[in-house]
Amino acid sequence: MANAGGRIKLGMVGGGEGAFIGAVHRIASCIDDQYELVAGVLSSTPEKARRSGEAVGLAADRIYDDYESMAKAEAERPDGVEAVAIVTPNHMHAGPTIAFLDAGIHVICDKPLSISLAEAKRMQAAVEKSGRIFALTHNYTGYPLVRRMREMALGGDLGAVRLVQVEYAQDWLAEPVEKRGSKQAEWRTDPKRSGAGALGDIGTHAFNLADFVTGLSLAEVSAELTSFVEGRQVDDNVQISMRYLGGARGALWASQVATGNENSLMLRVYGTKGGLMWRQENPNQLFWSPLNEPTRIITRAGPQSGEAAARLTRVAAGLPEGYFEGFANIYSEVAAAIKAARKGETPPKGVLFPTIEDGVKGLAFIEAAVKSSKANGEWVKP
Amino acid sequence: MANAGGRIKLGMVGGGEGAFIGAVHRIASCIDDQYELVAGVLSSTPEKARRSGEAVGLAADRIYDDYESMAKAEAERPDGVEAVAIVTPNHMHAGPTIAFLDAGIHVICDKPLSISLAEAKRMQAAVEKSGRIFALTHNYTGYPLVRRMREMALGGDLGAVRLVQVEYAQDWLAEPVEKRGSKQAEWRTDPKRSGAGALGDIGTHAFNLADFVTGLSLAEVSAELTSFVEGRQVDDNVQISMRYLGGARGALWASQVATGNENSLMLRVYGTKGGLMWRQENPNQLFWSPLNEPTRIITRAGPQSGEAAARLTRVAAGLPEGYFEGFANIYSEVAAAIKAARKGETPPKGVLFPTIEDGVKGLAFIEAAVKSSKANGEWVKP
Amino acid sequence: MANAGGRIKLGMVGGGEGAFIGAVHRIASCIDDQYELVAGVLSSTPEKARRSGEAVGLAADRIYDDYESMAKAEAERPDGVEAVAIVTPNHMHAGPTIAFLDAGIHVICDKPLSISLAEAKRMQAAVEKSGRIFALTHNYTGYPLVRRMREMALGGDLGAVRLVQVEYAQDWLAEPVEKRGSKQAEWRTDPKRSGAGALGDIGTHAFNLADFVTGLSLAEVSAELTSFVEGRQVDDNVQISMRYLGGARGALWASQVATGNENSLMLRVYGTKGGLMWRQENPNQLFWSPLNEPTRIITRAGPQSGEAAARLTRVAAGLPEGYFEGFANIYSEVAAAIKAARKGETPPKGVLFPTIEDGVKGLAFIEAAVKSSKANGEWVKP
Amino acid sequence: MANAGGRIKLGMVGGGEGAFIGAVHRIASCIDDQYELVAGVLSSTPEKARRSGEAVGLAADRIYDDYESMAKAEAERPDGVEAVAIVTPNHMHAGPTIAFLDAGIHVICDKPLSISLAEAKRMQAAVEKSGRIFALTHNYTGYPLVRRMREMALGGDLGAVRLVQVEYAQDWLAEPVEKRGSKQAEWRTDPKRSGAGALGDIGTHAFNLADFVTGLSLAEVSAELTSFVEGRQVDDNVQISMRYLGGARGALWASQVATGNENSLMLRVYGTKGGLMWRQENPNQLFWSPLNEPTRIITRAGPQSGEAAARLTRVAAGLPEGYFEGFANIYSEVAAAIKAARKGETPPKGVLFPTIEDGVKGLAFIEAAVKSSKANGEWVKP
Repeated sequence: MANAGGRIKLGMVGGGEGAFIGAVHRIASCIDDQYELVAGVLSSTPEKARRSGEAVGLAADRIYDDYESMAKAEAERPDGVEAVAIVTPNHMHAGPTIAFLDAGIHVICDKPLSISLAEAKRMQAAVEKSGRIFALTHNYTGYPLVRRMREMALGGDLGAVRLVQVEYAQDWLAEPVEKRGSKQAEWRTDPKRSGAGALGDIGTHAFNLADFVTGLSLAEVSAELTSFVEGRQVDDNVQISMRYLGGARGALWASQVATGNENSLMLRVYGTKGGLMWRQENPNQLFWSPLNEPTRIITRAGPQSGEAAARLTRVAAGLPEGYFEGFANIYSEVAAAIKAARKGETPPKGVLFPTIEDGVKGLAFIEAAVKSSKANGEWVKP
Repeated sequence: MANAGGRIKLGMVGGGEGAFIGAVHRIASCIDDQYELVAGVLSSTPEKARRSGEAVGLAADRIYDDYESMAKAEAERPDGVEAVAIVTPNHMHAGPTIAFLDAGIHVICDKPLSISLAEAKRMQAAVEKSGRIFALTHNYTGYPLVRRMREMALGGDLGAVRLVQVEYAQDWLAEPVEKRGSKQAEWRTDPKRSGAGALGDIGTHAFNLADFVTGLSLAEVSAELTSFVEGRQVDDNVQISMRYLGGARGALWASQVATGNENSLMLRVYGTKGGLMWRQENPNQLFWSPLNEPTRIITRAGPQSGEAAARLTRVAAGLPEGYFEGFANIYSEVAAAIKAARKGETPPKGVLFPTIEDGVKGLAFIEAAVKSSKANGEWVKP
Repeated sequence: MANAGGRIKLGMVGGGEGAFIGAVHRIASCIDDQYELVAGVLSSTPEKARRSGEAVGLAADRIYDDYESMAKAEAERPDGVEAVAIVTPNHMHAGPTIAFLDAGIHVICDKPLSISLAEAKRMQAAVEKSGRIFALTHNYTGYPLVRRMREMALGGDLGAVRLVQVEYAQDWLAEPVEKRGSKQAEWRTDPKRSGAGALGDIGTHAFNLADFVTGLSLAEVSAELTSFVEGRQVDDNVQISMRYLGGARGALWASQVATGNENSLMLRVYGTKGGLMWRQENPNQLFWSPLNEPTRIITRAGPQSGEAAARLTRVAAGLPEGYFEGFANIYSEVAAAIKAARKGETPPKGVLFPTIEDGVKGLAFIEAAVKSSKANGEWVKP
Repeated sequence: MANAGGRIKLGMVGGGEGAFIGAVHRIASCIDDQYELVAGVLSSTPEKARRSGEAVGLAADRIYDDYESMAKAEAERPDGVEAVAIVTPNHMHAGPTIAFLDAGIHVICDKPLSISLAEAKRMQAAVEKSGRIFALTHNYTGYPLVRRMREMALGGDLGAVRLVQVEYAQDWLAEPVEKRGSKQAEWRTDPKRSGAGALGDIGTHAFNLADFVTGLSLAEVSAELTSFVEGRQVDDNVQISMRYLGGARGALWASQVATGNENSLMLRVYGTKGGLMWRQENPNQLFWSPLNEPTRIITRAGPQSGEAAARLTRVAAGLPEGYFEGFANIYSEVAAAIKAARKGETPPKGVLFPTIEDGVKGLAFIEAAVKSSKANGEWVKP
């Protein structure tokens, strides 16, 4: 049963009216009953922040005008938040993250980590100095069958990994919707707020997924970033070749103009002993092809789904878990770490979530890809 | 934003240690932040009830030994529960349902409604007498694309419905697991506690789904109930032919011994103007085949997914919602009805959930099928 | 290599202008280079027969006006046909079949065998009397993975078979196209020429497929035949419950009004040790679900596809074989039998094709289903 | 009906014992009854050539020891071959092609055209000089739904094409099978005989498919060729970025070590108005996603399958056509051209098959990719 040891008091920065990802974090944090949202500054303007805070049921004295005052006040309260979720646009991650860490509060931050590698490293320094927990919500690593893939890849089922093919295709930016009133599209295509386009928004998800599953070390990238929609200020299509240490190769494709694709994230990994294929849009199936044997369909809670998936599944096989449950798994893993930290312990065996190192790796990947693309596809080390 | 008007205080009967569906109800009730679980009798033995209640964070004074005392005490408290979830085995639905309704408390009850049509009708009388809200968690009606199917069928897109093919195939009872220590299998194959086997457990889901989507009135059934596993006391495979008023035909297959199927619920409906196909295991896709046109894949939040689905979807297309979100939709629909009831109003337009009538219909279906099967497949009116 | 021993000289009755299945037989007979079409009466009117014969390259002196004269003349020629394909509408199968058998010529006949069980039995007597080979083109038994299913079912991989779910859904008769000039629709919905509607045309395919794969003996059927399209003289939808000797159960659904289905023939078989699923529309994949193991996708020429499929596959795995190749397999199996017969031998090990017994079984099935449906679904022995 | 004007007398070079593709060509040539195989030199050693020729039923006087004498003798016979199929390993294409063209005989040649661009251009000169028909069997262009894609792309349904994602994944060379006795693997991994590895064998198929469908002009490529299996002399994995004139981008992946893939050729094309997706392994379905509308499943002979597919389909929708039928379409298109040429006419409207230009384009692509890969992925013009 779920909330042994008491719910974790949670704060939130960002995620107010008109936002998308804030509501996702709130649902994800509730599913396993490990958190209680009690404080926040949900918008950058005080009036909207107040209205949004009330709408999610925050007490009036815990709705703040800005994150600095929130960090200070909550750190002083005996019942102050133990963790905070940062769900602002990318350029607004660093400020609150550092402020809350400095105030001794654990941080759960949306991805990508920030808008520059330099900033990411400053955040990393803050994490290290604080000794607090920092989690990055690369939520796709929370899907049980993604855990299963990792378990198989790292456990040797694939043999030596030769090839990684990862793609994340969307179509919501096939037209210039940022000029037609979509708030989401506006900030995500504004280089100042997003840092990068498809590369940062979904390319990093794809990169992180491959990295999480295979554990391979990226050696260098050759990238081709394109902006297909007229007037768009950021890339909306990304093709990247990857060389890994040890000789494996990879290809990453991320697109926001691939009509007919909604959130078509797919990972394929091929090793000397077998291949794996998984798609986010039907995340309860994993296709496992051992060398010279038929492909097997492993289901989330079915035969051969393994221990790593079983830790993170809630319901019988054939009853689909989806996006929120995968996201909730990240929150619950972090909760386990926080509860261990209360007792000065390390997290229980198996607990796993993306950390500051993954965030820095993501920014290094972004900057290498941008640099390569500007250099006409030259191979660049991240 | 979610919990406008304050969270609904919720109680729970059943769902303690070792249970499956109780945890599902708790997650479903939290997802849209409309409920707060505050009281319960989670097991039939006081000690387990206490342990289970503590595990989910109930205050000590709101963990009860039996449902009668809970109904009485909660009705008297100024902060007593406004609604209660009944998640006991089927033979234990009627008692608490009637007790809470009599105490003026809304009831959310797991399916099937009960273990006999006679009992179901007594429950119906209690609902009517009480004037309280009664919801039956035929949760598959909560999937957005099931709503879309209903919208299309009732809105005329299919023309006149000719044919319904519905099936619910599982394999978890392919072996005599009830004799090998599975608590789930034990009560679900015990006719005293379950009332029926595959027919009651999943056949009613299939029947209800077809009924919900098409609105057709069942005229008569011809059934073949089989028990394949040696020593099993209930049916584990069900084949039913259905005749509807107006001439449509249907076939229903429910099985718990169909190896390779987990929760393979599929509905196909064919009318004079087109056909629909939907599968629970990948609930974010609906296949719509207009006459003489290519089949279209309608996604949960994609183009042409309609208003009825949009009401019940939380996240962008391509990010899969699953079992819990569909279940949560039932809870949220009921919450809307409860909040309207507070003000003496009828529920807002579009609010929809399975009711006592659906429960009675389900038992009538079960009893007709059992009778037909005993009469060697004779056609029987429900 | 293919045509060792020389090509078999083939005649054809039916299959001229405007026909569908004749061209299929001609292609099927050529694929493995075992036959040479040299004579025929391709239409029932002499003028069309001549025109059609010329169009397929027959010599003038081997285009006949009627099957009686063809049988006589060909039997007398030293280079006369060794086998004949009967591809006329169903009511025209018996006449030529008997004539050619009597003339000592092997017969390959389209399905269903005839329009009545009585007629079927007369044909059976003619086969037995003649000692000639008679093959019925239930072509779906020619698909390699159908052979694989049979090999697995009869070889014990499934354990004892409990359940058969077979369906054949089409939509081409969802509207009254027989009144709008479709020649195919005209004769297939004319009870005099077809004998039965969906039941005879595709229901028998479904029945035969299940029979071929499982080897189960049908004990009795309960059928519901429906004619949905106004004015239609034959059934266009069929639901049949089946009881097999030994206790297995089955359900068969055949429909020609299921919009969105083209030739959606699907067989699912469940036994005590596993389940199988195969679909005609993607015939190069077979889903095999051993009890308590993940489902495996067996491909036509991939790992674990077995010997029976290997005998009948021509090209590497992943290069799809389809309808014509499956049909060709029937022709090639018959060719092997004919070549053995030349030497007075029985066919080589593994050679297998539907015979007169299968045809009689099919008619018995049809008549039992019709009788049951007329008797309001009473169980009827075939 | 098929062979109006008489069958085309066909010769064959290569395709004897132990060969794979020769049998495919023979079946493909027979399906529409347009050809008759009458002469050949099926193997490079006279004894095997004789044995192989007899096995396929050639008359003794038309089994030759070498292609030079065959070209000479057949050109002199009044009943000599009108066309010849060249199905030797790649390094043996040029010699017979030029010899037969010089003898006035049409040539149907397997792909890739040759082992060097220089040789390809010599062949091109021979074609031009001869005035004879030359067809290259890039057989995937023969699939009806590939024709449909082309019709849609060139007809403007996609708007301006932005993106091409094409891949051809196999796994048969995941292990060093060339050292374990596979004759196929031996020559295909021998650079002297194949010219290139995965790039030449399947990469050119992928390139040709994209080229055929989109009509885009390739501007430059950046390639990463890898040889994963120890001791292998050719590439077994290929990743190529492509820039097209006009700004479109493409990515091509070809692999022979991607375990779990048999002949997984997939093309996706995205334009300003919609996207297309097609997979060779299930070639009877095409996924068409118009901008802001649901994806539609277009089937080979179903609604909206168009004229270009209808020309090349033989059987009703839902009855799968496969590899052989697609290959046969190339043969039948060539037959139409040959029959027109007999009368000094150009081919009928719509007739289409890969030509010498496509072959030259393919070699230019190969050489550019090789050059780029050697130059560490530098962009190279083909």
